[in-house]
Amino acid sequence: MSDTEMKPGLSRRSALGMAAAAAGSVLAAPALAQEDQATIEWKMVTSWPKNLPGPGVTAQRICDQIGVMSQGRMRVSLYAAGELVPALGVFDAVSSATAHMGHTASFFWQGKAPAAVFYTAIPFGLLPLEHVAWIEQGGGQALWDELYAPFNIKAVMAGNTGVQMGGWFNREINGLEDLKGLKIRMPGLGGEVLRRLGATPVTLPPGELYQALQTGVIDATEFLGPWSDRAMGFHKATNFYYAPGFHEPNGTGEALFNKTALDGLPEDLRAIVLEACQAENGRSLAESEWENAGSLATLQEEDGVVVKFYPDDVLSELRRISVEVLDEFAARDDLSGRIHASYEAAKARLAPWSNVSVRRFLRARDGSI
Amino acid sequence: MSDTEMKPGLSRRSALGMAAAAAGSVLAAPALAQEDQATIEWKMVTSWPKNLPGPGVTAQRICDQIGVMSQGRMRVSLYAAGELVPALGVFDAVSSATAHMGHTASFFWQGKAPAAVFYTAIPFGLLPLEHVAWIEQGGGQALWDELYAPFNIKAVMAGNTGVQMGGWFNREINGLEDLKGLKIRMPGLGGEVLRRLGATPVTLPPGELYQALQTGVIDATEFLGPWSDRAMGFHKATNFYYAPGFHEPNGTGEALFNKTALDGLPEDLRAIVLEACQAENGRSLAESEWENAGSLATLQEEDGVVVKFYPDDVLSELRRISVEVLDEFAARDDLSGRIHASYEAAKARLAPWSNVSVRRFLRARDGSI
Repeated sequence: MSDTEMKPGLSRRSALGMAAAAAGSVLAAPALAQEDQATIEWKMVTSWPKNLPGPGVTAQRICDQIGVMSQGRMRVSLYAAGELVPALGVFDAVSSATAHMGHTASFFWQGKAPAAVFYTAIPFGLLPLEHVAWIEQGGGQALWDELYAPFNIKAVMAGNTGVQMGGWFNREINGLEDLKGLKIRMPGLGGEVLRRLGATPVTLPPGELYQALQTGVIDATEFLGPWSDRAMGFHKATNFYYAPGFHEPNGTGEALFNKTALDGLPEDLRAIVLEACQAENGRSLAESEWENAGSLATLQEEDGVVVKFYPDDVLSELRRISVEVLDEFAARDDLSGRIHASYEAAKARLAPWSNVSVRRFLRARDGSI
Repeated sequence: MSDTEMKPGLSRRSALGMAAAAAGSVLAAPALAQEDQATIEWKMVTSWPKNLPGPGVTAQRICDQIGVMSQGRMRVSLYAAGELVPALGVFDAVSSATAHMGHTASFFWQGKAPAAVFYTAIPFGLLPLEHVAWIEQGGGQALWDELYAPFNIKAVMAGNTGVQMGGWFNREINGLEDLKGLKIRMPGLGGEVLRRLGATPVTLPPGELYQALQTGVIDATEFLGPWSDRAMGFHKATNFYYAPGFHEPNGTGEALFNKTALDGLPEDLRAIVLEACQAENGRSLAESEWENAGSLATLQEEDGVVVKFYPDDVLSELRRISVEVLDEFAARDDLSGRIHASYEAAKARLAPWSNVSVRRFLRARDGSI
């Protein structure tokens, strides 16, 4: 792709111009020196507060690693949610070349590309390692490329917050009847599954969840895992913490690239950018495991939280309805159907191995059945 | 660290000399051009055949990624097992600066540094994601550094083959009595556990396992997971494939660096080398999951293999003896004791979270208990 085909603001030449202009106001002399070295300046917009434990930290580490690996030939400046565009403006900003790249989660973009939800998590779907295997080995990446092509966006995995918990409840769930009338914050397909069982899914931004739970505006909320959930203070408003997170067994972070910008990078810098994202898949997942484990212990041992498990008959019905919801989803359009089919094929292949390996080992390790 | 402190053959200057000398025989003119660009030439020795599915592929990808990300400023040439040094000569070769780096597995080096075994897998120990969390978050890396410091070696994780299977048996294991007299190939601590229960661990190189199994020289053998095991043909010699791999629940690939060589790299190239290793932790683990899952299905559906599970009372006794073996191990020396303590602390932290998240989810996903 030649410079003339690039959108304004994203060619190497204009990136240099941006750098020189930005630096010119305070650092005229160094800016000239940088121009000699052809420094490429990129903007990354994110859906997270600055350095939010988990995804915010991952986004910053990607920028830092690109800087170190390129010896400063490429600099990516991170803009937290609201600094350049709002949290949910990331997709449009990258598509329109307001920013060169973004760090976010795909489930935010269901309104633009319905099947985007498959690239974060699906009720009773793929676990983190299984999800990576689907993307990299099972055809998931090619379908992701196709899904976002109309927006001139290329997406790759960039970090993972792991398996979610099932949520915080101010009453026990002992059977299906306890779901009736339950006012719960659970976005997406999981919320739709609960709705069909008589619950009332409520849409609220994260910042309002604690108060809504405490004042009884809602009876329950899901969020992420113990690390993030404890930081939100939900344990002060309710004591029942349910597992498993049937609705979101994976937490892939999504790096979005303006495709023109990514294609316009020299080969070495493009490899550096993509490898920095790739490295976060292992690194941030391990960090989430460690922090979730520590926070779970603190919640139980110091905060008096009681971990409960959904009863088997409730899970059985949630599972049945999930199939129904997903089948309807797959019938929406051709691409949604193909992504659903690819995802289910990967699950059919991977699930028996996970049962024989990880699940059997965990059972053997502590002797419980 | 200055050039004068470096060992011969590993300074940037002598690396250039090597490149020029190597290229000089056939490519005199280009060699001069490369010298102008200060190309750094490294040797990587490995314990694997060239492109062995799993670790051999990972080792080559690391070399390739370093080449692309550095735009050819650094080239790492891979030497398969036996090409420069034997499979088990990798550690010495890196320590003595015969090679700049190696790709291998830590459990090979128990004779030199006993606690090296903790950096691959321990009976009833950490699963792959838990292992990464221990290394990166739980203090495992600092102890690894200390363990290899006397050898002037720095090690990092570089890929993972996942959870192993329990092995191939020509008879069923229905109780503890079936372990008595069992001639089984199982190296390391797992073999010692079985020995204390009356089995006879046999040491054989991989290339002799199939015939030994077929002729009855051994009654059973473990190796890796379905992907590699099927390639070895064990299913043609016996039909019982046991799970779980209680003895090796993790398969971390180990990158070894001559510390002088690594410290002598420019900061950007050092970051590129380490990030290429890091990226493989997620990438190769996902690849192993995908291929193991596919091979498991083929073994069961086409090869007539029967997957069996160790009975609970056998696992219970294996677990009890494993604690005994590990406690004795920890008493050998101060560093072994500290590594064992760090590993067990990580396990105590991570295991409850794995049970609440992954294990509960897997149970919910298919409805079996």
